[in-house]
Amino acid sequence: MPISAEHDDTERHLKQLTEDLETGKLAELNQLLQALTPAEIADLLEALKPADRLVVWRLLPPEVAGEVLVELHEEVRGSLIKALEKTDAEDLIEAAGALDPDDLADIVEDLPETIRDKVVQALSHHDRRRLERVLTYPEDTAGSLMRTDTITVRPNVTLDVVLRYLRQRGELPDLTDALYVVDKDDRLIGILPLSVLLTSDPNKTVRELMLTDVEAIPAALPASDVAMLFEHHDWVSAPVVDEEGRLVGRITVDDVVDVIRDEAEHTIMSQAGLSEETDMFAPISESAKRRAVWLGVNLVTAFLAAWVIGLFEATIQKEVALAVLMPIVASMGGIAGTQTQTLVIRALALKQIGEANVWTLLTREIAIGLINGVLWAIVVGIIAAIWFQALHIGLLIAAAMIINLLCAAFAGVMIPLLLDKLGIDPALAGGVVLTTVTDVVGFLAFLGLATLWLF
Amino acid sequence: MPISAEHDDTERHLKQLTEDLETGKLAELNQLLQALTPAEIADLLEALKPADRLVVWRLLPPEVAGEVLVELHEEVRGSLIKALEKTDAEDLIEAAGALDPDDLADIVEDLPETIRDKVVQALSHHDRRRLERVLTYPEDTAGSLMRTDTITVRPNVTLDVVLRYLRQRGELPDLTDALYVVDKDDRLIGILPLSVLLTSDPNKTVRELMLTDVEAIPAALPASDVAMLFEHHDWVSAPVVDEEGRLVGRITVDDVVDVIRDEAEHTIMSQAGLSEETDMFAPISESAKRRAVWLGVNLVTAFLAAWVIGLFEATIQKEVALAVLMPIVASMGGIAGTQTQTLVIRALALKQIGEANVWTLLTREIAIGLINGVLWAIVVGIIAAIWFQALHIGLLIAAAMIINLLCAAFAGVMIPLLLDKLGIDPALAGGVVLTTVTDVVGFLAFLGLATLWLF
Repeated sequence: MPISAEHDDTERHLKQLTEDLETGKLAELNQLLQALTPAEIADLLEALKPADRLVVWRLLPPEVAGEVLVELHEEVRGSLIKALEKTDAEDLIEAAGALDPDDLADIVEDLPETIRDKVVQALSHHDRRRLERVLTYPEDTAGSLMRTDTITVRPNVTLDVVLRYLRQRGELPDLTDALYVVDKDDRLIGILPLSVLLTSDPNKTVRELMLTDVEAIPAALPASDVAMLFEHHDWVSAPVVDEEGRLVGRITVDDVVDVIRDEAEHTIMSQAGLSEETDMFAPISESAKRRAVWLGVNLVTAFLAAWVIGLFEATIQKEVALAVLMPIVASMGGIAGTQTQTLVIRALALKQIGEANVWTLLTREIAIGLINGVLWAIVVGIIAAIWFQALHIGLLIAAAMIINLLCAAFAGVMIPLLLDKLGIDPALAGGVVLTTVTDVVGFLAFLGLATLWLF
Repeated sequence: MPISAEHDDTERHLKQLTEDLETGKLAELNQLLQALTPAEIADLLEALKPADRLVVWRLLPPEVAGEVLVELHEEVRGSLIKALEKTDAEDLIEAAGALDPDDLADIVEDLPETIRDKVVQALSHHDRRRLERVLTYPEDTAGSLMRTDTITVRPNVTLDVVLRYLRQRGELPDLTDALYVVDKDDRLIGILPLSVLLTSDPNKTVRELMLTDVEAIPAALPASDVAMLFEHHDWVSAPVVDEEGRLVGRITVDDVVDVIRDEAEHTIMSQAGLSEETDMFAPISESAKRRAVWLGVNLVTAFLAAWVIGLFEATIQKEVALAVLMPIVASMGGIAGTQTQTLVIRALALKQIGEANVWTLLTREIAIGLINGVLWAIVVGIIAAIWFQALHIGLLIAAAMIINLLCAAFAGVMIPLLLDKLGIDPALAGGVVLTTVTDVVGFLAFLGLATLWLF
């Protein structure tokens, strides 16, 4: 059967690969690898121990090996290149050299200098210029994301001429869905979708049929804005222009998909103080060091909360029930605040928050905080009063809960907005700051009110 | 200038839109809306209060209004349709009726029955069959994701015939990058990329040039697996086949991008117990109710932790410093465990975890937990001992920290794996379960050891 309807499954491949590695069945291993795309092999490599990654990578033909490097998470790529540098320098040079200049640009900074020099020297003049063009743009901009394999046509030729040119040229670059129409100064003046080329009268000229109502992407546009443009317009590819409107390249949807995936990973990993480029099997000492930093940051806030509790030692001594119940107040505040903050962070990412609606959002969240504060204050108050057979304990915790949930709603809206204004990533710092607020307010409200009552 | 290099910016549009709404400048409002894509308008609508959404939606021409409905988050769409049902039933019918059957399929279940019936009845026989074909597949499968606007060709015709057919047909469906080659029973036997069609000798037959090494997507494949296939293969579109290998439709990358975005939102929102379809401006009572459920779940675990503390009331009474310091032990465990769990959840999503490497991962995480446990135990121990002028307090918290960080590493690996096996979403439930473990173990270790020491 020519058409395989089987879908890929990294977990199954991982099992087979590990078995083949253990039993040394290199022929089977090669067969498996040949059936996979570079992206699939990269996913597999990341699931392997560093030593096994080396073994597998060495089995790959150079052109695949290079593309696999491009597809790996940065940290995994870095450690693999470091391991290859000494023993397999030649293979590394060959693999990197086999890459398209646009792909090479993604990894060239990760190559050790000696290897990088050799790879760049081996490029043709044309390819070196393509590489340099992409490298002039800062990371995470449209310019760094683009490929330079555009096909350009002039406006005054007929479609028939274009068709003959394409046939003579053979093969189109991957994901080409349009030809770009430029004037003699390389300025983009329109695009000619392949679908138009295929369905129109061949005797008409490009000028008659090209689309001129085109949004070209400025090379300096941030990658996240590029992703949003693609999502909003359902593009397959889009032209990139410099400040003078000259065509410098094009961005294709496959790279945009990677941006979207990276951004999502960034948000998720940041919340735990991790980088989205994290290697699951990085050296233990390195992982431990990086995580220690995050634990240290959180320790400071934990000590701050402890210090607040310490202010009320005498109160707790007098009424130990307070120590038993105080984590409930803090934790409910944290949960409620996180809900609000998560909504706000999503809206920020979609640029859906501005002066126009922030006030509505804030009052709405505070109203929800009040409703849930009162609701759960009653529940927790009754349980606490019965548990400790003391009405005042129930009243105290109920009041503290309402205060903390109101505060959590306010903080959940304001903290991410403030961090965003300050240029700090709310996904990374929001959680720490928010729980510091809800912990401190929670302990302060509960133990403070208790002190006023008891003394 | 024909080429606009301006990028879209929801926040700026939101500001302008709100001003136009307030001042009643309908002409300006219309002008702004005409310049935006349906996806952009949907993003804008979601940032507006429900009442304003109605006003803006009514200004849209039917074909745009329908597409905007498709692009909205489910919850926003639901409330908008509900608001429109009584006063604007006719407009709603017109907007839904203007949709392509493949898009209509995405929202038809959200329409009230009376409106749905009218929309479906107004469809041509052909369109109704297309709608039905998509609706037979369960949500979140390839079948429900697909469009039915495929162009098929027979293997025995020449490219020249195909080219003439396309010219006669005019326009291709959006995001068409290949024609599908089928036999007389509609079975997919190959694909003919437009790039091949454009660059090959027109006298050759389709059979000579079609690609047969094609992965067709089974209609029952889960949407998340479809997304992974697209990412691994850099596809623009891919054919969907039924169990007999018959072509039933195609999936295009724009819809895959939406799946990827939805999945990312799902993970992020789930961690806070929210749905990715959440409307930022849903009615307060509804939002409050939904969030109350999540707070209730977390309250149970908070009471569990409180109950553990309650076991040691006598110990705390004797040594109040314990109450001051105990949140530190619990919180550091929670942070460390969350880091591990976040890594594991990402790896699970990429199917990078299996029997083959789970043991390596577990020992690695425990080693990291041990290193950081010892490190921060020393730091916290010294600070605590100095703060309370008591060596035993320092020793107790240090020991408890090590125990809790080891436990956190173990739980961080095992909890998401276990939840995944049970078919429970680890992103949703993982956090609650994990912090329950780290809170309980943290309090138990610290207060338990103290009790052994003091009594």
